[in-house]
Amino acid sequence: MEFALKSLSAIVINELIQICGEKYVFTTEDILADYGHDETEDLQFNPSVVVKPITPEEISAIMYVANRERIPVTPRGAGTGLSGGALPVFGGILLSTERMNKILEIDERNLQATVEPGVINQVFRDAVEAKSLFYPPDPASRGTCFLGGNLAENSGGPKAVKYGVTKDYILNCEVVLPTGEIIWTGANVLKNATGYNLTQLMVGSEGTLGIVTKIVVRLIPLPTQNLLMLIPFRSAEKACEAVSAVFRAGFTPSAMEFLERDAIDYVLQYVDVKIPVKENHKAHLLVEVDGNDLDVLFKECEQITELMYQYECDEVLFADSAQQKADLWKMRRSAGEAVKSHSVYKEEDTVVPRAELPKLLKGVKEIGVKYGFRSVCYGHAGDGNLHVNIIKDGMTDDEWETKVPLGIREIFQLCVMLGGTISGEHGIGWVQKEYMDIPFNPTQLNLQKGIKKLFDPNNILNPGKMFV
Amino acid sequence: MEFALKSLSAIVINELIQICGEKYVFTTEDILADYGHDETEDLQFNPSVVVKPITPEEISAIMYVANRERIPVTPRGAGTGLSGGALPVFGGILLSTERMNKILEIDERNLQATVEPGVINQVFRDAVEAKSLFYPPDPASRGTCFLGGNLAENSGGPKAVKYGVTKDYILNCEVVLPTGEIIWTGANVLKNATGYNLTQLMVGSEGTLGIVTKIVVRLIPLPTQNLLMLIPFRSAEKACEAVSAVFRAGFTPSAMEFLERDAIDYVLQYVDVKIPVKENHKAHLLVEVDGNDLDVLFKECEQITELMYQYECDEVLFADSAQQKADLWKMRRSAGEAVKSHSVYKEEDTVVPRAELPKLLKGVKEIGVKYGFRSVCYGHAGDGNLHVNIIKDGMTDDEWETKVPLGIREIFQLCVMLGGTISGEHGIGWVQKEYMDIPFNPTQLNLQKGIKKLFDPNNILNPGKMFV
Repeated sequence: MEFALKSLSAIVINELIQICGEKYVFTTEDILADYGHDETEDLQFNPSVVVKPITPEEISAIMYVANRERIPVTPRGAGTGLSGGALPVFGGILLSTERMNKILEIDERNLQATVEPGVINQVFRDAVEAKSLFYPPDPASRGTCFLGGNLAENSGGPKAVKYGVTKDYILNCEVVLPTGEIIWTGANVLKNATGYNLTQLMVGSEGTLGIVTKIVVRLIPLPTQNLLMLIPFRSAEKACEAVSAVFRAGFTPSAMEFLERDAIDYVLQYVDVKIPVKENHKAHLLVEVDGNDLDVLFKECEQITELMYQYECDEVLFADSAQQKADLWKMRRSAGEAVKSHSVYKEEDTVVPRAELPKLLKGVKEIGVKYGFRSVCYGHAGDGNLHVNIIKDGMTDDEWETKVPLGIREIFQLCVMLGGTISGEHGIGWVQKEYMDIPFNPTQLNLQKGIKKLFDPNNILNPGKMFV
Repeated sequence: MEFALKSLSAIVINELIQICGEKYVFTTEDILADYGHDETEDLQFNPSVVVKPITPEEISAIMYVANRERIPVTPRGAGTGLSGGALPVFGGILLSTERMNKILEIDERNLQATVEPGVINQVFRDAVEAKSLFYPPDPASRGTCFLGGNLAENSGGPKAVKYGVTKDYILNCEVVLPTGEIIWTGANVLKNATGYNLTQLMVGSEGTLGIVTKIVVRLIPLPTQNLLMLIPFRSAEKACEAVSAVFRAGFTPSAMEFLERDAIDYVLQYVDVKIPVKENHKAHLLVEVDGNDLDVLFKECEQITELMYQYECDEVLFADSAQQKADLWKMRRSAGEAVKSHSVYKEEDTVVPRAELPKLLKGVKEIGVKYGFRSVCYGHAGDGNLHVNIIKDGMTDDEWETKVPLGIREIFQLCVMLGGTISGEHGIGWVQKEYMDIPFNPTQLNLQKGIKKLFDPNNILNPGKMFV
């Protein structure tokens, strides 16, 4: 624990008011409580003060004060994170980027856009789609999450399987360093062989190396057509095996999502969508193809379906209306919330090479049996990224606190043994840092801690995250 | 200058022999001279010794000796670099990876491969193509350059415009750190939100942060069809304007190459290819589309051609045989060598946002007039990456040494002003480091130097590169 929890002096609060304006500095209990949790489990850590700056210069000034006083600063986007990255675990200053919500430019000549970090993912995708452009990263929380948070966590989503994750779209960003300087990390170009890749060092750094204040992303032409199929399987492992067969056969679907039966059952209780599910359907794949030529896409669907039948799928549901597509996506996107509404849970964001998915799923179930917990699995199968929701159900608090972490440790060890790692898109943050010794040895960890120290010598920016 | 040039003691040479075997330690003048240059201008810096280790453990042992003795170590792939990155500018140990040339695995289930750094790019692409898989990065030197060097320089090539550069294909790598430890940088997965991105820090670091000993790359399905067109323009600037129009219209060609008239003229003198070039053709675009459906590609070519006519192109040459395609590519790929065979030259690897290309080209010519030099330009127009070859021709040595660097400085300043930077795919190395103050301010440079110091506290790995 690097900091004792302490309340800030009136002098510091006054300085923050000088910097941000009285209207944007908050110390009332209800507001501190609002900003004291994110979407991670049931965790709550209240900050001492919430500030809402609107310019890089204001953030820079805040960092100078925080450095002088050694006050922790926790940056926060929309608070939709699933690893506790935005939790002010040592109190101090909670810095919300919510007022920095402008799309500064959509550069149609260069297929680029410049945004502030507080722009909502969906707002941005709508804005570029209106110009027939496409920003692929689409986390489940896209209706509320911020692009700054997406950058911090290197967010993915269903489209990642064809189009890549956030890191593949960030060309350049403006960052306030923990020491207060403001820099750009790169240039607004598609190719760059000029110095170390500071941009990619910032992406996925979970707000521990700097506070991103402007983001330049690349855009691509918007595909005009897509087709969607829901494919039921009698065996979850067969479904997972089918996934890598599709890619091996030369197809690259624009989504390849997996849902265990339990996940579908929770969803059907939670949202009003109609999906014909039979007794013997143990898992489903949701497969989308996209492009500009419908005939080509129909042919692809046909070929993919043929392949799926070799893995003993049942009858394929082909979405034949916009409404049905929307329902199927609603089903998939609600899976997390639906499962979580049912019970206390822990969500693990496992990732392995795609073809190892059957082994991962089998292992997760065996480990659950060993430690006495049930899990509900779904996720981005095409990327080998399986969300494992461990359900408390009837476990005692003691079992939950002692046995589950041992099980999680074994699950992560299995991931690493299969060539994977412990987070695909949610990040390490607060809740997974105790497991960082599994993917990394001390040399690897010390290099990362060295980078942190280089950027943030006083360890004031989002302390307590990522590393034990 | 961090090191005085010094010869190595017999004790050190003996230790290197102990590590690598007598057969793989070289100190004769002819061999030192062979390894004392790369493809960068006419530069020559001989090492004190050349070693050819074959395992990460041997490299690790070499680094321990080098650290103890503070001997510079310069890693080298095939020596095809264009920024002097493999030049042993302070003498010492030249470490060639040429014996580490095995393709360790092509994992067809996961569409991944694991290779050693000394595998030739073309050898690798042939091996994966035999399995209907595709590794896109294709620098002009692909017939001889090594994948390790490609990683070090973040190499591109014509395919980058659709498929991305080397960084977009590297999933994970094994690295011997300057201090001798051996680590992996990540995991073999498509999505990773686990700690800082050490993999992307290594890509493009020009052999200054570690020596890569194994590389895990992702592969994609091999497109089965492609079409190629050569499009002549009456104005080089119009050709550049046409480039961004194509992407804005929603097309993503698999190559979009630009050649000035002078470049074509040099090529036609240098290699035996037949291209019908008319008097009034001032520039050409070489445009390729690829995919799996020929009808779709023909339609795309037709639409792209229509668009090109709006930019006053002359009659489009549609390659109608494999031979003609090969000839057109030979013409493009020989451009560098052809220009360089003609005169002493300096090659600048400028890059800007794609739509700024006309301004860049115009600016380069004006700067040439101002400082009295001629330039021949060609390159990857779809990526805004223009290779500017400055030709010595009749300039005096004095003019060449004094005026040209001022002109280069102005060209780079123009790049940065247009949102670009000073190298797109060749790297900074030895010859561009004096210009690093143009894209980066002291804060940005100090962060990068801090990373270098963290990885290489004694500054023995490829010293004298990237930073002044």
